[in-house]
Amino acid sequence: MNGPYVAVIGAGQATMEQERVAERVGALLADAGAVLVSGGRGGVMLASCRGAHGRGGVTVGLLPGADRAEGNPFLTVAVPTGMGELRNGLIARAADGFVAVGGGWGTLSEIGFAMRLGKPLIAVGSWTVEGPAQEPSYPTVDTAEAAVSWVLRQLG
Amino acid sequence: MNGPYVAVIGAGQATMEQERVAERVGALLADAGAVLVSGGRGGVMLASCRGAHGRGGVTVGLLPGADRAEGNPFLTVAVPTGMGELRNGLIARAADGFVAVGGGWGTLSEIGFAMRLGKPLIAVGSWTVEGPAQEPSYPTVDTAEAAVSWVLRQLG
Amino acid sequence: MNGPYVAVIGAGQATMEQERVAERVGALLADAGAVLVSGGRGGVMLASCRGAHGRGGVTVGLLPGADRAEGNPFLTVAVPTGMGELRNGLIARAADGFVAVGGGWGTLSEIGFAMRLGKPLIAVGSWTVEGPAQEPSYPTVDTAEAAVSWVLRQLG
Amino acid sequence: MNGPYVAVIGAGQATMEQERVAERVGALLADAGAVLVSGGRGGVMLASCRGAHGRGGVTVGLLPGADRAEGNPFLTVAVPTGMGELRNGLIARAADGFVAVGGGWGTLSEIGFAMRLGKPLIAVGSWTVEGPAQEPSYPTVDTAEAAVSWVLRQLG
Repeated sequence: MNGPYVAVIGAGQATMEQERVAERVGALLADAGAVLVSGGRGGVMLASCRGAHGRGGVTVGLLPGADRAEGNPFLTVAVPTGMGELRNGLIARAADGFVAVGGGWGTLSEIGFAMRLGKPLIAVGSWTVEGPAQEPSYPTVDTAEAAVSWVLRQLG
Repeated sequence: MNGPYVAVIGAGQATMEQERVAERVGALLADAGAVLVSGGRGGVMLASCRGAHGRGGVTVGLLPGADRAEGNPFLTVAVPTGMGELRNGLIARAADGFVAVGGGWGTLSEIGFAMRLGKPLIAVGSWTVEGPAQEPSYPTVDTAEAAVSWVLRQLG
Repeated sequence: MNGPYVAVIGAGQATMEQERVAERVGALLADAGAVLVSGGRGGVMLASCRGAHGRGGVTVGLLPGADRAEGNPFLTVAVPTGMGELRNGLIARAADGFVAVGGGWGTLSEIGFAMRLGKPLIAVGSWTVEGPAQEPSYPTVDTAEAAVSWVLRQLG
Repeated sequence: MNGPYVAVIGAGQATMEQERVAERVGALLADAGAVLVSGGRGGVMLASCRGAHGRGGVTVGLLPGADRAEGNPFLTVAVPTGMGELRNGLIARAADGFVAVGGGWGTLSEIGFAMRLGKPLIAVGSWTVEGPAQEPSYPTVDTAEAAVSWVLRQLG
C-alpha cells in the first residue's frame, strides 16, 4: 500500500462518544487511502477499524498476545506479537502519524513513543501533558474531521 | 483475512533456483487464499512476495529497520519494527505455518522459534538439523507444490 | 539480588539540578539495598548510576543499541538490546518501582508503561499529565529523599 | 563489569550429564571473571548459574515472563522481559560469546541468532546443523574446559 500509515490509539474500554469519534476517524482515513494501524482489540481500536472497514480501507492490528483470535473482526491483517504491552512501541514504529482518541496509560506510552520518534500526533479528548523542559507538544482538536485533516496534511 | 497466515522464510541473498521456488510458493499460497508473511526484504522474501502479488494475494512484511522504504515493492502491508534481527521472532509469532527455502543463520533462528512454538514447518533445500534429544524434526521436500500442499493440509 | 528493583528514568540530557537529584536518588537506593535499573546512558541515567556505584550498589543498564560500549561507566551489568527506544518498555518490565527525574518524551513513554502495569511511580520535577478518564495519577515530590522513601515504602 | 559476557544456552529440562557440564562451564566462566548470561530458568540455565554463583561470579537471567520470581535462585540480576520466547533474541544481543549445552528448539533459535550476529559460539553435545550454502559452522567439543577455553580465547 502506498498510502500513509496512520495509527488510531485509544483505550480498549471507551465511551460511546469516543467510539463514535474513532469510527469516524477510521472512515475518513480509509477514504483518504491511508492504512489504519492499531492495537487490534476493542473499544477505540475496534471502532476505528469498523469505520475503515466499512469504507473498504486496509486495517492492521498489532496484538499483544500470541493468539490471532483476540483481534477484532474488522482487521485486514492481524499480527499476534506475544510481546504484551511492549507492542505499543511497535505501533509507534509501524505508523507514520497518530490520532489519539481518549485513552488510558497504555495510550500515554504510545504518545510518548510517537513523540520521541518525532512523528506527527494529534489528540481528540485524550491526555494533556506538560514536560519539565516545556518542549512543544501535540495539538488537540474537537472533531474527527479536524484530526484526520491535520495528520494527513503533516504526512503530505 | 480469514485464510491461514504462512511465512516464507529464507535468505536475502538467494540463488536463482531458490528464488524460482520461493516465487512459486508465493503464487500457490495466494491461490489458496493464504496471507503471506515474510521479513519483507530481498532474495527469497522478495521472490515469494512477487509470486503472491502476481496472483492478487495479500503480503505482510515485518522489516528489521525503522524505515518502511526498505520493504520490497510487492508488500501489501509493510511494518518497520526497529528491532533488528529480533524481528525474526515476530515472524514466528505472526504466522501459523512456515515454508523455509534455502536460508542462512537468520533463517535457522526462525526455524528454531517456529518449532519451539509447535507450528508446522516444511523445508525446500534448507537447513538440516539434528538435536541432542533426537526430537522429531520438520519434513523436507523438493518442490514448491509439495511444500505448500503439506503446510496447508497441516493448517486444515 | 533480593532487594527491590527500582528504575530511575529521565533524559539523556539533563540540567545540573536534575543530575544532582538523580545522583542522590541512586545513592539512597544503593543504601537501601535496591538494584538500580536504567536505560544505561547519560544525563539522569548516568548520574543515578554514579550515585549508586559510589555506595557499592548494583546497577543494571538496558541499552537501546547493540554495543555494550554505549553504556555509562557506572554499570554493574550492561545489556545491549538492539531494540532502540522499545527498550523503554523493557525497563518498565524489569523494575518493580520507578522514580522519574525530569525527562523528555522517552521518559513519558516509560511513565505510561509503568502505570499501565500498575507499578508504583513517583516524580521529581517530571511530567504532569491529565487523562481523559481522570484516573488517579502518580505523586510528585521535591526531593530525592521523599521520592526514594515513598517508592521503597510501596515495595515494602 | 569489565569481563566478557558469555551466555550458556540449553534446555530447561536437561540430563544429569548436561547439568554437570553446564555447572562446570559456569564455574570456569566465573573463575575467568566473565559475566554469565542465560535465560534464567531451570535445567542447563540453573546448573550454569549454580556453578558461577558457587565461585562468586555474576549471573544475569533474561526471563521470558513478567514475574521475577520465575528466575532461578542463583541469579545476581533477574530481568523479567514479558516477551516470551522472543527473549532468546535478547540473550543473543546481550552476550559476546556462547556455549551451547544440549538444548531443544529454543536453543536452536539462539544458535541461529548468535551466528547471524557473527558472535563466537561453541557446542557441547548440542545441535549439529548443515546449511544450504555450507557456510562455516561452529565447533563442537566434549568438555566444559575445552568449550570455555575456546570461547574466552575468541573474546580475547
